[in-house]
Amino acid sequence: MKRQNRMWRKVIFLAICTVVLAVFGTQLSFAQDATAATMDDIMGLKVSIDTSWVFLTGFLVFFMQCGFAMLETGLIRQTGAVNALLENFIDAGLTALVWWAVGFGIAFGADNGSGLFGTTYFFPGMAQMSEMYPALNISVLTMFFFQFAFAATASTITTGAMAERTDFVGDLIYSALIAIFIYPVVAHWIWGGGWLFSQGVHDFAGSTVVHTVGGVIALVGAWMLGPRKGKVWGKVNPPQNLALATLGTMILWFGWYGFNPGSTLGMGNPGLVGLVTLNTTLGAAAGSMACIFFVYFRTGKWDLPAALNGSLAGLVAVTAPCAFIEPWAAVVIGLVGGILVIIAADLVEKAKIDDPVTAFAVHGANGIWGTLAIGIFAVPGMLFAGPYAAGGAMEGQGGLLYGNASLLVTQLIGSASVIVYCAVTSVLMFGLLKVINRLRVNAKGDEIGIDNYEHGMSHMPDLLPPYDANAPVVKSPSKAPAVGD
Amino acid sequence: MKRQNRMWRKVIFLAICTVVLAVFGTQLSFAQDATAATMDDIMGLKVSIDTSWVFLTGFLVFFMQCGFAMLETGLIRQTGAVNALLENFIDAGLTALVWWAVGFGIAFGADNGSGLFGTTYFFPGMAQMSEMYPALNISVLTMFFFQFAFAATASTITTGAMAERTDFVGDLIYSALIAIFIYPVVAHWIWGGGWLFSQGVHDFAGSTVVHTVGGVIALVGAWMLGPRKGKVWGKVNPPQNLALATLGTMILWFGWYGFNPGSTLGMGNPGLVGLVTLNTTLGAAAGSMACIFFVYFRTGKWDLPAALNGSLAGLVAVTAPCAFIEPWAAVVIGLVGGILVIIAADLVEKAKIDDPVTAFAVHGANGIWGTLAIGIFAVPGMLFAGPYAAGGAMEGQGGLLYGNASLLVTQLIGSASVIVYCAVTSVLMFGLLKVINRLRVNAKGDEIGIDNYEHGMSHMPDLLPPYDANAPVVKSPSKAPAVGD
Amino acid sequence: MKRQNRMWRKVIFLAICTVVLAVFGTQLSFAQDATAATMDDIMGLKVSIDTSWVFLTGFLVFFMQCGFAMLETGLIRQTGAVNALLENFIDAGLTALVWWAVGFGIAFGADNGSGLFGTTYFFPGMAQMSEMYPALNISVLTMFFFQFAFAATASTITTGAMAERTDFVGDLIYSALIAIFIYPVVAHWIWGGGWLFSQGVHDFAGSTVVHTVGGVIALVGAWMLGPRKGKVWGKVNPPQNLALATLGTMILWFGWYGFNPGSTLGMGNPGLVGLVTLNTTLGAAAGSMACIFFVYFRTGKWDLPAALNGSLAGLVAVTAPCAFIEPWAAVVIGLVGGILVIIAADLVEKAKIDDPVTAFAVHGANGIWGTLAIGIFAVPGMLFAGPYAAGGAMEGQGGLLYGNASLLVTQLIGSASVIVYCAVTSVLMFGLLKVINRLRVNAKGDEIGIDNYEHGMSHMPDLLPPYDANAPVVKSPSKAPAVGD
Repeated sequence: MKRQNRMWRKVIFLAICTVVLAVFGTQLSFAQDATAATMDDIMGLKVSIDTSWVFLTGFLVFFMQCGFAMLETGLIRQTGAVNALLENFIDAGLTALVWWAVGFGIAFGADNGSGLFGTTYFFPGMAQMSEMYPALNISVLTMFFFQFAFAATASTITTGAMAERTDFVGDLIYSALIAIFIYPVVAHWIWGGGWLFSQGVHDFAGSTVVHTVGGVIALVGAWMLGPRKGKVWGKVNPPQNLALATLGTMILWFGWYGFNPGSTLGMGNPGLVGLVTLNTTLGAAAGSMACIFFVYFRTGKWDLPAALNGSLAGLVAVTAPCAFIEPWAAVVIGLVGGILVIIAADLVEKAKIDDPVTAFAVHGANGIWGTLAIGIFAVPGMLFAGPYAAGGAMEGQGGLLYGNASLLVTQLIGSASVIVYCAVTSVLMFGLLKVINRLRVNAKGDEIGIDNYEHGMSHMPDLLPPYDANAPVVKSPSKAPAVGD
Repeated sequence: MKRQNRMWRKVIFLAICTVVLAVFGTQLSFAQDATAATMDDIMGLKVSIDTSWVFLTGFLVFFMQCGFAMLETGLIRQTGAVNALLENFIDAGLTALVWWAVGFGIAFGADNGSGLFGTTYFFPGMAQMSEMYPALNISVLTMFFFQFAFAATASTITTGAMAERTDFVGDLIYSALIAIFIYPVVAHWIWGGGWLFSQGVHDFAGSTVVHTVGGVIALVGAWMLGPRKGKVWGKVNPPQNLALATLGTMILWFGWYGFNPGSTLGMGNPGLVGLVTLNTTLGAAAGSMACIFFVYFRTGKWDLPAALNGSLAGLVAVTAPCAFIEPWAAVVIGLVGGILVIIAADLVEKAKIDDPVTAFAVHGANGIWGTLAIGIFAVPGMLFAGPYAAGGAMEGQGGLLYGNASLLVTQLIGSASVIVYCAVTSVLMFGLLKVINRLRVNAKGDEIGIDNYEHGMSHMPDLLPPYDANAPVVKSPSKAPAVGD
Repeated sequence: MKRQNRMWRKVIFLAICTVVLAVFGTQLSFAQDATAATMDDIMGLKVSIDTSWVFLTGFLVFFMQCGFAMLETGLIRQTGAVNALLENFIDAGLTALVWWAVGFGIAFGADNGSGLFGTTYFFPGMAQMSEMYPALNISVLTMFFFQFAFAATASTITTGAMAERTDFVGDLIYSALIAIFIYPVVAHWIWGGGWLFSQGVHDFAGSTVVHTVGGVIALVGAWMLGPRKGKVWGKVNPPQNLALATLGTMILWFGWYGFNPGSTLGMGNPGLVGLVTLNTTLGAAAGSMACIFFVYFRTGKWDLPAALNGSLAGLVAVTAPCAFIEPWAAVVIGLVGGILVIIAADLVEKAKIDDPVTAFAVHGANGIWGTLAIGIFAVPGMLFAGPYAAGGAMEGQGGLLYGNASLLVTQLIGSASVIVYCAVTSVLMFGLLKVINRLRVNAKGDEIGIDNYEHGMSHMPDLLPPYDANAPVVKSPSKAPAVGD
């Protein structure tokens, strides 16, 4: 090393110091220590930074539970509001317990070699406080929380499609089962280093793992339940509270900034976080605009629920590809998503499946679309599977537009495998509930409304008084407002 | 230092660089500077990281004000909704001003040697921008904000128990007094290096300092106010808006991820943040499940308010111990909390104290339970009092289950001392208000409803029109809906 | 360097290590690496830390969209609620698209030398992932997102003043135009290194750039629209839902902790973040208290909307000066703001301009006041224009109280220039809409209510059923509840 070289460095260093001091004005003072720092110190700080990022974005993902609760409650009928609130709320607690006990280990524990499920990290505790999750700068417990928030999301999606008529004990059972053996297995296949990961299936933040899973289970559940009492085919019931629905959607969009950018699982690549956030924003924006215009051309009205569902459709669709695509592609994916959500909802309705909040159209159809879109729009050489998979990071392939057809095939295999797995397991699961008579509330529940039957309460008693068994004539269905309306 | 040694280092360094580059793909580019970094640089970054963490979690704690406002407003009767909204809202501003002027200094200023209160940091300003808070990597102003958000929480708890009947000027006065001389003194005793800290009382994030304080004042307030007009003993009034109550609880749970994990007051120990977050989650989950099942076995209904209050009970109870216990203990503490909240609410009702939102059962009873639970479940050798106390960090003792009975005694002393202090000061405070006739609204206020009397407004005028003094017959109590119902 | 010196350093270093280890207990373990770290490593971490801070605070700013939606919907009449929800919601998506295409480049792209607008960064994409924004430690895409959230805020302010009567297509057009050519130009002048920046105009977080711009456009819009059908001058319509309005305000206050502290655009100066957060809190607090007492002395009622608007007024006013002033000055600025908002609202009413949510009084009047307040209260030597402006950082001047009158003159020039620019462009813009008959809904829309006319929906159909064209008598205005009330 030459003297001149060293001097040059010193000049740069002093220049930087000067700029830094100028820029940051009054600096905090602390004990001076000019001892040389080591890479250990750097790595310690990396862990702190990545842990902060993952927790803070994870908290946002957790808050999406609240978004789902408000959205579903706002979109359905007044008589099932308490039920919707409770199902969405209790789901967080229920999932936390089973995810801690079993789910996290199946999803993110070390694979036993089969590529099907993990076998470690059950009941994580103090012993895992200082254990780093493989290939990441965060501890096992940090990973646990972030993934808990995701798991809770998946099972919440289902309640929307099954609203207003599901037996409450049945709801508790199926929510637990989803978090124990449906969601974690899929998560392991793609994010935990399982067999679909080995195939090269790309799903950055969960269009397949979270949304397709939730959407498919939702569709099976709605189908096996049968329609709500009073359902008129081809006619949407008027949402009971649009402020709640809008609040819920805005919380979900807000929470999605934890969902997608947080899925970098660290701040080691600030540029990627920037791309992911931009694509997430554009996907939501394009979905919202496409959907409201599409509905306007059909009905002549500027439809608020369309704007809400369109943004969610765009968000769901862009969730898998957001780390692999150019922003213009995020716009295209969102535009398609915003139209797809209406078409898919029409098809579900035509199939005589009553999905009160169009959960399948939003999460299922767009989860599939987003997963396949990677096969079309992925830019070659982007980081594949993030630092997620235990197998480590690899360069991703390009999509159709970049001359590669094989990725689209891989994505198709991935999406189809997950659809089949979820369809089969959820038919079994809901079939079991039907056998033990815990799938649907009984005729009395349908008659007086699920809130009165299961919960003995009314969402807003000053607006809709609760059912009173002793009241003279109130048992007549025509007196139970809004049910059958 | 040998040449071989140096070469070995270089190899490792290059290997790490390769891995980092592979993992993080396209890196952000900036001016190259290979000058050696010093521990000063490292410490500067630590301050940045810890400051980010404390502010961002502090913002979440601040948002709990909104949670309390929505929860209380949802749980009470329509006729007191505006009052509840205003009391919870104005409390943030009022507390900010008095906390800045006096409270923070009493709580976290340097002790005068008495162990009773602090005597510095009144009216903090620019001079404190670059002053580090003792033993932490954050400035005095950073500490100020985080602790402000906590202080605001404490006085908000009280308004719930005193809902629908407190004189508004009285509310302003008692809120200010709590933030000036009740809460800060207790905070100093335990977190500011005061006499209970010296005794070794453990309270990681405030089961005693925040929740027991709020709960005891709430109980005294509700008792001295007397019941609401129309209160029927043994019968819960139906919550006027369960979506609001659920929204509020979900915001509170979300905010608790600032409250507990943020109480590490930095990211120097990422593993501890992981444990705290996991325990917080499990406490809430277990509380929610225990409470809803407990109520189901009593009433045969799946009770939404029980699920909400149960989760809050679990959160309150796990707040003090979450940094000292294994996750299974968090589950046990939450389960007990979820049942305790119902039993405590029953006892309050039997004592003919009208606490409309069961604030004492949630915050008081569970605050005490959580504080004592440390004496049972604490794992020896955990960090005692965090980097909180000015006196520095120490290793904590183990609890009863680890063969040590003395910690439980210490915790009992701590909890009892705070209960006595709060009970005495709040009896004096509310007694004073009674003397100047500012404790309870007058008979007219009770008759037309507090919203009409104090605020001249109705929460939802299209549902419940405001009182009109000129209307022909509306003065008859039977025409003022829901009051006296 | 003497041997003694080195030994002394080692002692300090060991002491710090000991303290750190003691304080942080069980540390996370990772592969040991004692290689020396370089300033490159430090700079890499700075980028990670600053990127985290800017994104997380940016997410909070984005959530303010939700706050505006809830506040406006709560404050207006039931019959325009769906319209308000949709306008606030769609604005986020619409702004995202045009901000990505054009707005960001005009505001923050490199100036062409004119000082009037930027000419780069249109349609940013993967190429900008690794491009640093000049003079900051964040990438262009990070800057993009933070500034998008700000831009969305500006156009949302306008919808409040124009509520209940604006043509929906007109709303889409003017929202896009604001984000394309009104807001970005002003942002460039002050924050993008334009001509007002060169003049030395101070606006830390946007009292002028965001709030004055939004407020002035709002006033022009409300004036050109004419009053709502049924508007009674001098009488405030009762807010339809005060829980929504309070929720919205609390979300806004929460989001403001992203708006102001995040405007440091990094965590390089933790002390400044502390000052900004404290001043933001005190401004809100003082505004709230001043306003509620001021209204109490006029009406004898403790007015919830006054408390809400007062806090927002204080927040708006303190937004520009919060990085330049002592906390006591923040209190003074907030107190004035809380009174100013009422006086300004009265003047607007007297001018026969119907601003249903007092958007001009909150954002316009207080945006101007806050900008001028810098000229009075600024402490000399604070960092001017943050690390914001492309031109780099400079020391700011002091205000009148520190013996310097020239800063106040500069601030006056800045505020006046922006007011003139916004007034002229918005008169042209709304005039154009009037010409193409897209400014105000037609007579039918006024008669049946905008929700029925534009959206075919009712906010809460169980409370206020939607308009039915086939119903026998419902076309009579007296049957359409709350419109004309």
